[in-house]
Amino acid sequence: RTYAHTYTHLVMFQDVHVMIFIGFGFLMTFLKRYGFSSVGLNLLLAAFALQWGLIMQGLWHLDDGKIKVSIFKMINADFSTATVLISFGAVLGKTSPVQLLIMTILEITIFSINEHLVAEILEANDVGASMIIHAFGAYFGLAVARMLYRPALRNSHENDGSVYHSDLFAMIGTVFLWMFWPSFNSAIAESGTDQLMAVTNTYFSLAACVLSAYAVSSLVEHKGKLDMVHIQNATLAGGVAVGTCADMDIGPFGAMIIGFVAGIVSTLGFKFLTPILASNLGIQDTCGVHNLHGMPGILGGIAGIVAVALGKKNGSAAMQGAALASSLGFALVGGTITGLIMKLPFWGQPPDQNCFDDSIYWEVII
Amino acid sequence: RTYAHTYTHLVMFQDVHVMIFIGFGFLMTFLKRYGFSSVGLNLLLAAFALQWGLIMQGLWHLDDGKIKVSIFKMINADFSTATVLISFGAVLGKTSPVQLLIMTILEITIFSINEHLVAEILEANDVGASMIIHAFGAYFGLAVARMLYRPALRNSHENDGSVYHSDLFAMIGTVFLWMFWPSFNSAIAESGTDQLMAVTNTYFSLAACVLSAYAVSSLVEHKGKLDMVHIQNATLAGGVAVGTCADMDIGPFGAMIIGFVAGIVSTLGFKFLTPILASNLGIQDTCGVHNLHGMPGILGGIAGIVAVALGKKNGSAAMQGAALASSLGFALVGGTITGLIMKLPFWGQPPDQNCFDDSIYWEVII
Amino acid sequence: RTYAHTYTHLVMFQDVHVMIFIGFGFLMTFLKRYGFSSVGLNLLLAAFALQWGLIMQGLWHLDDGKIKVSIFKMINADFSTATVLISFGAVLGKTSPVQLLIMTILEITIFSINEHLVAEILEANDVGASMIIHAFGAYFGLAVARMLYRPALRNSHENDGSVYHSDLFAMIGTVFLWMFWPSFNSAIAESGTDQLMAVTNTYFSLAACVLSAYAVSSLVEHKGKLDMVHIQNATLAGGVAVGTCADMDIGPFGAMIIGFVAGIVSTLGFKFLTPILASNLGIQDTCGVHNLHGMPGILGGIAGIVAVALGKKNGSAAMQGAALASSLGFALVGGTITGLIMKLPFWGQPPDQNCFDDSIYWEVII
Repeated sequence: RTYAHTYTHLVMFQDVHVMIFIGFGFLMTFLKRYGFSSVGLNLLLAAFALQWGLIMQGLWHLDDGKIKVSIFKMINADFSTATVLISFGAVLGKTSPVQLLIMTILEITIFSINEHLVAEILEANDVGASMIIHAFGAYFGLAVARMLYRPALRNSHENDGSVYHSDLFAMIGTVFLWMFWPSFNSAIAESGTDQLMAVTNTYFSLAACVLSAYAVSSLVEHKGKLDMVHIQNATLAGGVAVGTCADMDIGPFGAMIIGFVAGIVSTLGFKFLTPILASNLGIQDTCGVHNLHGMPGILGGIAGIVAVALGKKNGSAAMQGAALASSLGFALVGGTITGLIMKLPFWGQPPDQNCFDDSIYWEVII
Repeated sequence: RTYAHTYTHLVMFQDVHVMIFIGFGFLMTFLKRYGFSSVGLNLLLAAFALQWGLIMQGLWHLDDGKIKVSIFKMINADFSTATVLISFGAVLGKTSPVQLLIMTILEITIFSINEHLVAEILEANDVGASMIIHAFGAYFGLAVARMLYRPALRNSHENDGSVYHSDLFAMIGTVFLWMFWPSFNSAIAESGTDQLMAVTNTYFSLAACVLSAYAVSSLVEHKGKLDMVHIQNATLAGGVAVGTCADMDIGPFGAMIIGFVAGIVSTLGFKFLTPILASNLGIQDTCGVHNLHGMPGILGGIAGIVAVALGKKNGSAAMQGAALASSLGFALVGGTITGLIMKLPFWGQPPDQNCFDDSIYWEVII
Repeated sequence: RTYAHTYTHLVMFQDVHVMIFIGFGFLMTFLKRYGFSSVGLNLLLAAFALQWGLIMQGLWHLDDGKIKVSIFKMINADFSTATVLISFGAVLGKTSPVQLLIMTILEITIFSINEHLVAEILEANDVGASMIIHAFGAYFGLAVARMLYRPALRNSHENDGSVYHSDLFAMIGTVFLWMFWPSFNSAIAESGTDQLMAVTNTYFSLAACVLSAYAVSSLVEHKGKLDMVHIQNATLAGGVAVGTCADMDIGPFGAMIIGFVAGIVSTLGFKFLTPILASNLGIQDTCGVHNLHGMPGILGGIAGIVAVALGKKNGSAAMQGAALASSLGFALVGGTITGLIMKLPFWGQPPDQNCFDDSIYWEVII
């Protein structure tokens, strides 16, 4: 690569980096007594994950027997990190740092196998990673959450909620994610037209998604009010859902339709599906990653199948479908095994009454 | 345009995007019980406004009968959005989301007419948009606020104030606006010398403005103390005021003089003028946009007239003056009409006692 | 320079600017009643310091008798500003704005002499400024703090501590510093390979530093808990310590070792050394700058001596050693003299009981 190329990567890298550390970190600070852990463990897990991700992804691309570092690979390491942080959202407040580090090791290892399969063997398109990051991270996390099911938390825990200021801190995360998502979806796209198209498609999808998320939130809530949980999360679903198609020639309206649908699906998921998952399936999804990353990720994968079938990008619709199936399969099987390992009794899992509470892991002044 | 050019636009675009969504959004979170609406409605309005702005501005520049999208046009869409967010500041806490969406549609439509007139017909200079964004947005908002005058709020409302933490959230907005203002004023400048000059001029103006804002705040307050309202807002007036001249050869000292004066004018405005506007003219300007955008915007327009007269840039001082007059005229007439439409009784305007309170539009846990 | 080069500088400049204004500003908001001063005085001092820094550094590089401005020089002005903000951390809560402005004038003057000596006379390497910014700023501030010693504050002041939300605000500062530190250490590096190496080396050092800071914090605290003070600060020590070597060919493992050691040293410093400095030496270091900038800065200087001795970069180990000694010498002597001047009784130094309290300098609503 030329240096000019790499400097473009550098700019994209910085934006993605902000999403990983500020975006994910603050998005999870919505809980009233779990802000230290949200932003603090996010930093720990991400700093660890990017190193492990560089190694795991590097093993597939050895150069003269060595792992060579570049800005491009640092972007990919941040991507592998994103899967872990998505899964972290599903189990937020109910796991110890040691459990989370174990999850990081296993999840990134499995991610890098699936990523290699999807990109190199199936040769599927997934430039913004709707399938291999978002759907994968979400269903991996949900499988872990299912394994770590806590019957005692069926009736809501007193700390499993927000206060006014914690919701504002979370909005810092939301807005930074929202602003820089175009860089996420375009960071590893082909320089030039494709990359700029990935930027604009994501921009349009997100803009449309905000409108549908607000509209649906107001429609389903009491007296037409808005719910902060929807605004913090569902406004981002358009970024997830347009990921696979971001560098395809779907046009602004194509992107906006994807974003608009994603906003609807995500908001309805928070309102109606999350409670059912918790009460009927034993899946306690703290941050609602199923609604922000899971369903919109699948939607993105399906949109990719359709777009490739319509000739919007070179590729095979069948391989796109196989990539989606592979991502979901690796996620569910990998997450289940990982959850079982995390359930072993010597990793310091917090007792039910200390869930969602920083003071078990942090020196907190009352 | 070449791609290299467009990548420069991409970097500028991201900075401007941060100003729109984090900068404006958090700047308005200073109210103690209106943070959700400030950052949340800012997101809604901006996401809607940039789509509408792309269409409205695109209609003036049809390409083979179609609106073509580019990063450059996305910057302009963010610019049109800025006018709405400035006006939002004038009526913050006293309008419903539906009223604000109506204001967005009308204001951007009127903005794009004035912008076309100023840039294409008058061929006036306004690279950083002191006139067409800041003065326009402020006086448009003030005219709306005048139309929506609420006598019952003459004596201050109990929620029309800040608390300690809300002022810190607002400082997130202030500092991001302050840091990225050089990108705002240079984003659409000619690549190369002009653009870099716009960066440095804005940088110097802002640095000088901070000094005068702090000095004047301390001089006019009791016991030499500083007032957070001044610091959050008047420190930015230098960015507004240097906008028109940003890409002119005014030199660092020229830029610093503009910024220094802007800081003085803005701080004095908050201290002495805002109370008079509210009590004598019935203009209740919640965020003090007259002081941050209105007067500094006019100052910027006048500085532009002088600079062009002195030959600092090609152009006509008369056309600069006409551009300023046009911007103020469209703002005042447009804002008055828009305010009258917003006053119609079926847009869900909040009752006086629910002003400045998130709980009327948001699910808020007490 | 070509414009392409300068645009690269522009990107780096913006990242460094965020570190100065958001990073340093919010990092210091951890005190429960001193947030306005932390972020507000940070803005005032930085806006003043960058102007003074441009003049002081410009005097060494006159071009036809004039100081010419460029983005490159604006980066250097931000660097000179960083020294002042580091020293500000040592005396946070115990000085008046006037005292701090005097410190700014003197410190930047002395900094620019030492910087000229190190860079031009000794021709030492210090691309990320471990020695000339971090060690210099820290020991300068500690010398000032020693001169301003307040016996009445030996037993902790009631406001000299954090509350839950103030610690979260501080994490905004930490994370932005952490994310953009690679830009800080590479901003003035030679374009191309050297600059990209400075980015990656800093990235690896910081990642390793997070792991050691968390591990040591957990080891030294009661019941294996984490201390927010360590996480906010020691996670950044890797950025400081790798500064001198950032553009040297030390390899990812070299960078990680430096970062790992820095995280250990910094955390242990907070736990064991800071209390001793306060009780035995009369150095009351509010933010613990000795642990974040002082010791890691010296570590960085030593690492630079070793790396040059090992041939990782052209240069002389002796000159590297002289540069470190010069930086420490100028800092300690300059800080002592500056502290004596700041101690003069007419600068409005706050009385003991009003330390760490915004309400002495700000209009604060109780």
